[in-house]
Amino acid sequence: MSKGTVVLAYSGGLDTSCILVWLKEQGYDVIAYLANIGQDEDFEAARKKAESLGAKKVFIEDLRRDFVEDFIWPSLQANAVYEDRYLLGTAIARPCIARGQVEIARKEGAQFVSHGATGKGNDQIRFELCCYALYPEVKIIAPWRIPEFYNRFRGRTDLMEYAQKHGIPVPVTPRAPWSMDANLMHISYESGILENPKSHAPADLYLMTKNPEDSPNAPDVLEIEFRNGVPVRVVHVKEGKSKDTPLDIFSYLNEIGGKHGVGRIDIVENRFIGMKSRGIYETPGGTVLLKAHLDIETFTMDKEVRRIKQGLGIKFSELVYNGFWYSPECDFVRHCVAKSQENVEGKVQLSVFKGQVYILGRESPKSLYNEELVSMDVQGDYDPCDATGFIRINAVRLREHHRLQGFSGTKQ
Amino acid sequence: MSKGTVVLAYSGGLDTSCILVWLKEQGYDVIAYLANIGQDEDFEAARKKAESLGAKKVFIEDLRRDFVEDFIWPSLQANAVYEDRYLLGTAIARPCIARGQVEIARKEGAQFVSHGATGKGNDQIRFELCCYALYPEVKIIAPWRIPEFYNRFRGRTDLMEYAQKHGIPVPVTPRAPWSMDANLMHISYESGILENPKSHAPADLYLMTKNPEDSPNAPDVLEIEFRNGVPVRVVHVKEGKSKDTPLDIFSYLNEIGGKHGVGRIDIVENRFIGMKSRGIYETPGGTVLLKAHLDIETFTMDKEVRRIKQGLGIKFSELVYNGFWYSPECDFVRHCVAKSQENVEGKVQLSVFKGQVYILGRESPKSLYNEELVSMDVQGDYDPCDATGFIRINAVRLREHHRLQGFSGTKQ
Amino acid sequence: MSKGTVVLAYSGGLDTSCILVWLKEQGYDVIAYLANIGQDEDFEAARKKAESLGAKKVFIEDLRRDFVEDFIWPSLQANAVYEDRYLLGTAIARPCIARGQVEIARKEGAQFVSHGATGKGNDQIRFELCCYALYPEVKIIAPWRIPEFYNRFRGRTDLMEYAQKHGIPVPVTPRAPWSMDANLMHISYESGILENPKSHAPADLYLMTKNPEDSPNAPDVLEIEFRNGVPVRVVHVKEGKSKDTPLDIFSYLNEIGGKHGVGRIDIVENRFIGMKSRGIYETPGGTVLLKAHLDIETFTMDKEVRRIKQGLGIKFSELVYNGFWYSPECDFVRHCVAKSQENVEGKVQLSVFKGQVYILGRESPKSLYNEELVSMDVQGDYDPCDATGFIRINAVRLREHHRLQGFSGTKQ
Amino acid sequence: MSKGTVVLAYSGGLDTSCILVWLKEQGYDVIAYLANIGQDEDFEAARKKAESLGAKKVFIEDLRRDFVEDFIWPSLQANAVYEDRYLLGTAIARPCIARGQVEIARKEGAQFVSHGATGKGNDQIRFELCCYALYPEVKIIAPWRIPEFYNRFRGRTDLMEYAQKHGIPVPVTPRAPWSMDANLMHISYESGILENPKSHAPADLYLMTKNPEDSPNAPDVLEIEFRNGVPVRVVHVKEGKSKDTPLDIFSYLNEIGGKHGVGRIDIVENRFIGMKSRGIYETPGGTVLLKAHLDIETFTMDKEVRRIKQGLGIKFSELVYNGFWYSPECDFVRHCVAKSQENVEGKVQLSVFKGQVYILGRESPKSLYNEELVSMDVQGDYDPCDATGFIRINAVRLREHHRLQGFSGTKQ
Repeated sequence: MSKGTVVLAYSGGLDTSCILVWLKEQGYDVIAYLANIGQDEDFEAARKKAESLGAKKVFIEDLRRDFVEDFIWPSLQANAVYEDRYLLGTAIARPCIARGQVEIARKEGAQFVSHGATGKGNDQIRFELCCYALYPEVKIIAPWRIPEFYNRFRGRTDLMEYAQKHGIPVPVTPRAPWSMDANLMHISYESGILENPKSHAPADLYLMTKNPEDSPNAPDVLEIEFRNGVPVRVVHVKEGKSKDTPLDIFSYLNEIGGKHGVGRIDIVENRFIGMKSRGIYETPGGTVLLKAHLDIETFTMDKEVRRIKQGLGIKFSELVYNGFWYSPECDFVRHCVAKSQENVEGKVQLSVFKGQVYILGRESPKSLYNEELVSMDVQGDYDPCDATGFIRINAVRLREHHRLQGFSGTKQ
Repeated sequence: MSKGTVVLAYSGGLDTSCILVWLKEQGYDVIAYLANIGQDEDFEAARKKAESLGAKKVFIEDLRRDFVEDFIWPSLQANAVYEDRYLLGTAIARPCIARGQVEIARKEGAQFVSHGATGKGNDQIRFELCCYALYPEVKIIAPWRIPEFYNRFRGRTDLMEYAQKHGIPVPVTPRAPWSMDANLMHISYESGILENPKSHAPADLYLMTKNPEDSPNAPDVLEIEFRNGVPVRVVHVKEGKSKDTPLDIFSYLNEIGGKHGVGRIDIVENRFIGMKSRGIYETPGGTVLLKAHLDIETFTMDKEVRRIKQGLGIKFSELVYNGFWYSPECDFVRHCVAKSQENVEGKVQLSVFKGQVYILGRESPKSLYNEELVSMDVQGDYDPCDATGFIRINAVRLREHHRLQGFSGTKQ
Repeated sequence: MSKGTVVLAYSGGLDTSCILVWLKEQGYDVIAYLANIGQDEDFEAARKKAESLGAKKVFIEDLRRDFVEDFIWPSLQANAVYEDRYLLGTAIARPCIARGQVEIARKEGAQFVSHGATGKGNDQIRFELCCYALYPEVKIIAPWRIPEFYNRFRGRTDLMEYAQKHGIPVPVTPRAPWSMDANLMHISYESGILENPKSHAPADLYLMTKNPEDSPNAPDVLEIEFRNGVPVRVVHVKEGKSKDTPLDIFSYLNEIGGKHGVGRIDIVENRFIGMKSRGIYETPGGTVLLKAHLDIETFTMDKEVRRIKQGLGIKFSELVYNGFWYSPECDFVRHCVAKSQENVEGKVQLSVFKGQVYILGRESPKSLYNEELVSMDVQGDYDPCDATGFIRINAVRLREHHRLQGFSGTKQ
Repeated sequence: MSKGTVVLAYSGGLDTSCILVWLKEQGYDVIAYLANIGQDEDFEAARKKAESLGAKKVFIEDLRRDFVEDFIWPSLQANAVYEDRYLLGTAIARPCIARGQVEIARKEGAQFVSHGATGKGNDQIRFELCCYALYPEVKIIAPWRIPEFYNRFRGRTDLMEYAQKHGIPVPVTPRAPWSMDANLMHISYESGILENPKSHAPADLYLMTKNPEDSPNAPDVLEIEFRNGVPVRVVHVKEGKSKDTPLDIFSYLNEIGGKHGVGRIDIVENRFIGMKSRGIYETPGGTVLLKAHLDIETFTMDKEVRRIKQGLGIKFSELVYNGFWYSPECDFVRHCVAKSQENVEGKVQLSVFKGQVYILGRESPKSLYNEELVSMDVQGDYDPCDATGFIRINAVRLREHHRLQGFSGTKQ
């Protein structure tokens, strides 16, 4: 008698293959679910592998468009960056994958979902919060938090042994001494030799971006057009080449950004779970877009709206990092951010070169930039005498304060 | 009979030279005050010029150390960046200059101060708010906001004419078609041909940084050591060269950053006065330091303290941009930020190359990073089962919400 | 030849009557505009007075419904309170009045608007920012900031003299030794003898609320029903009386609140202009509603949405206080706040008694309150063991921190 | 053989008496610890009871002064209010109790601590986070989260039975149909019949405050003197009575506040654990102090410092509510708040009457209030013309925005 059906987020790798078999051993029917969010994977081979391991069904879903439109775009609108540096490439992939997983679980009448995320990381939280939010009655099986599982599989050797015993194909190439997670947005690298925060990342680690030392000696100049705060077209200025669907635009920016080594960072970040961890990321297209979006946004958005929206964007980043994509507050913040983007429209020209993105110029039919107003050479409607009153009124409070208390910042 | 004594912030250039003479014409005694904050200037020539134009006294103050220690360092501790991009190089120079000006005004018994800032910009506000804050009774003469002045001098030609008539030496080299402001921290470029936000900045504009296309083909690797959130030593790893006083450290980072073309940005920003303006900045040393500080800070500071401090840093940046360096709130924020830096200590290794700064690794005697705790290979004190409860409790609210209302973010 | 047409915000009182005549003296055509926002005024007498003083036209607009629906309701949704105490009764009236004034100015082709607000207060700013925002080309005449006006009218005596000379009817009752501003939302009292922050307000000052010492010895119990965060019905529980249009609801709450002396405060507040000023306010209906709204909101809104919305509400309050009702940022915040109110629906029972409002109970079809989940007597779906993991994971960071640094808060 | 020593937070009531005996049954040595934080309790009877039940040692600590000085005072400085209404009376007691418990555990070499908090509430979190923060290696026994315990004691009847069987004295008076928690700061009531959010609290529930309907018909007028944002003296204006130590001041304000029925609220709040719960609180002295502190703070603190500090206070309230008193971030916030209070000094007069606190006036040697500056009758140093420029510059942005986009807030 089956204990029920589990939809397993399956990657095709050693870990989730062992989990698949182990779940069957425990008496579950297993549906393997593999989301294509742009990682470099032989999906058909994975399908066959899962089938051969006894998966009742295998679903391979191409979610690349969903990922760009429903997850990368809203994050871009928010200028989402966690702790000033991390562009959230993994964090935004999780809700995309979990949404697909829950849809299958509901459709197939499965009461369980499972994943191969570890017990110290953020991903377990991101997966599970999404699942609970979208499918409140679901039961979650997280083997790496189940003592009988993790005590049995204390290291890679145990997994290899188990694999051999159960006819699970074992990888023939030696594993990199770190773990990685890849999707359209980025590749992240962590653990293993990277756990020592002092040691430098090996030069051959990066898969998505060229080493800037070896990248082309001439820049590519792009023009990115935005509407509602998301790109609707990218043009390679010299070559005239252009892209205008979300997935094409993003892929092309990955190509150009990757070619020039854009978007590499090496950081220590704070996990939701209260630990600091070291991560290395490469986010070529996302980095190009973030720079371009920041530019067109500041160009078209009112200063004070921007200030409020900046705070909402920081909040959004924390929520997403912590796994709360599907939460009432993240929903609320996304709504507000989207509202703020209504006039974020126009074109940004930029150059991509040796790991950097340089903004060159911008234009917009909706800009609040008023060349005549700001010009040093034209007085226009603006009366400089007004500034005197503006300053003096702003000084009322400062003068009062000084009379009473002085300023500690001054030298005495 | 003199109308009183004015301390004029004198730059040695055409504008303030004309103002000096004009103020004398209006019946004031003029003290010329020129602060050395690292700009490239022949100070002795300026002194002679001021004297020859009739300045009663001339003060040339070397404020470079003050500028680094009292203005750049606190800004670094705050990770001060205005509107996500501008490192505030001009904004932090103004209170430094104004403080010196006020000290002289008080010492010399001058009731007036004057400056050559225009009537549409931020600098007039920054100067004057500082002056009012530190010397509440002071009277300020801002010629570019006085109709009799600005109506008389409608353009450069008028100034040239006036200069020739009054024996003011006239610059012989043609003026760049933009204006610039330089100090130890940065050079900013704006107005003139740069007012069109779409047109690209000319390649020969930059004075402080090499064009990355022409910069060295090999990186320099530095190690920067921090204590209390400020650098106390920088070492060139290969060459062994090191610097350990604030001014030396900062100057050296300018040299290395400049050599590799680090810190160029082209932005549109929101002036306090409610206009958008386009500015181009190069901030080599400041950019290197910001990246390094962000790294060591995240490495050593508690996550939640960091979050609160990040908000204070954004507030600080707005205050400083708007000219409120000497205000009770900026004083308060600086105090809080400084408190947060008590354990921001350690060393960051980074590489500087082709306009980029790459963090390579970091170490600290006070880091909250715990390699064993975070390791994928060691369980240590951490029980993965705890994460289950953590996630499930975090999900209580989400599940309740979904039961009642569903999520609008999901596909239906 | 007329200098043009001015729409004057006319109150019927001595000041604006003098201004009306003075503007005519200066060569303007004057349109008198008087908004009825619920103040106690003989509007027909005011109309005749304005006509007799030479107003070209007189507009008396009943804006009471607009005031409640477009200004009080959005403020209630935001729980708008300035500096933790002031319910913004004057601040939200100004944009309502200014909107009407601008509409008339546009319709009548007037290039000028004028008002009688003083030069040290907030109201001048609120009026004028609204006018500039809604009618950017308008020219504003603020007599109390024009030296020829304010030097001529240095005190009440000068106004009286001028009035007598120009046939302006002079008030026969002696003036209170303070000034006041009244509308549907509140009455404010300030200046005169109230300027000394230490001296107590006289007992007979209040016009809208009974002294709690003399108010009824038995409470009234009301039930207020909300939809979208605004009241749609109020019922007097014992009497069965009910009201269900915005104006009726608000007026009735004023009546009940006033009867029981609700909503009196005596505060020192910070004006936009940088001064502290002392104000006394009575806001009976608004205070009842604020308490009720807070209750139903917390009952129905998700915790984390509430937190974000609380910050937006504080921002809203500052913006409105400072006169930025018609600004892109206030527009944006209002939109976000309104979004947050979609499920703020249900009934609150409360008792009004001796200056206080006591919440007695609440119910809602959309509440996130789950009696079974929270019950001490039912375990339900909730597993208390989960809390262990929740706590332990939350403690990871704290334990790490203590190991390194200890806590300064502890006794040593 | 003992499993080790447990320090049990013992209340003297049925639950913790059963826990004491149960822990012994499980093989632990039990030290009973009872903190006197102002609750109404026969401490000597509790000591004897604990001894008779087999406690190895009994510690009864009078922490009332600590509670006022180290917990109530910092909360007052922060104007700590959770979700706009709850004054955190229970939340600030927990770290006070836990600190004492940990001190005893360390001194006595106990590896375990235990408490009787339930598994759905906030208190378990508050206790345990404090314990983990102050004593990272401690092991916590929370019986209400241990299945063998909570499955055995499913209701009060089970506890009563167990008590009878183990010679635990059983309460003779019938239990109130709700639970309560009392200390110097407040009494809270929740659960039982209060779990229905719609049903009104019974009139006889309150123990600390008089029903306002029965309270005196004449107010008491007090003057409270503050230094560094905390009260240093309270005077009964008519009676001349005064108090000047923290504990005396607070107790006296409880007496006066309680006599007049001040500080009763009935709210639904959001627990950390993600549930909404209904609580009724009475906080007489704390409510009086909060109102007084708000007044003197606004009177003496700069506007913009206040704004930043307000945000920190909200953060503080959330942290404290959630149990993070001993956390690096709460430490940081407390430090910043304390800094902001340096000039919060002066006297507030207020009247306490029928459940309300009315501020009557205030004075301070350090106030930024400038009677002359703000006066309507004195122009002083202030030039009203400056306001014109101030307004016009503030309008620059609004006018630009309108020209481009209009305002959605206006009627069309």
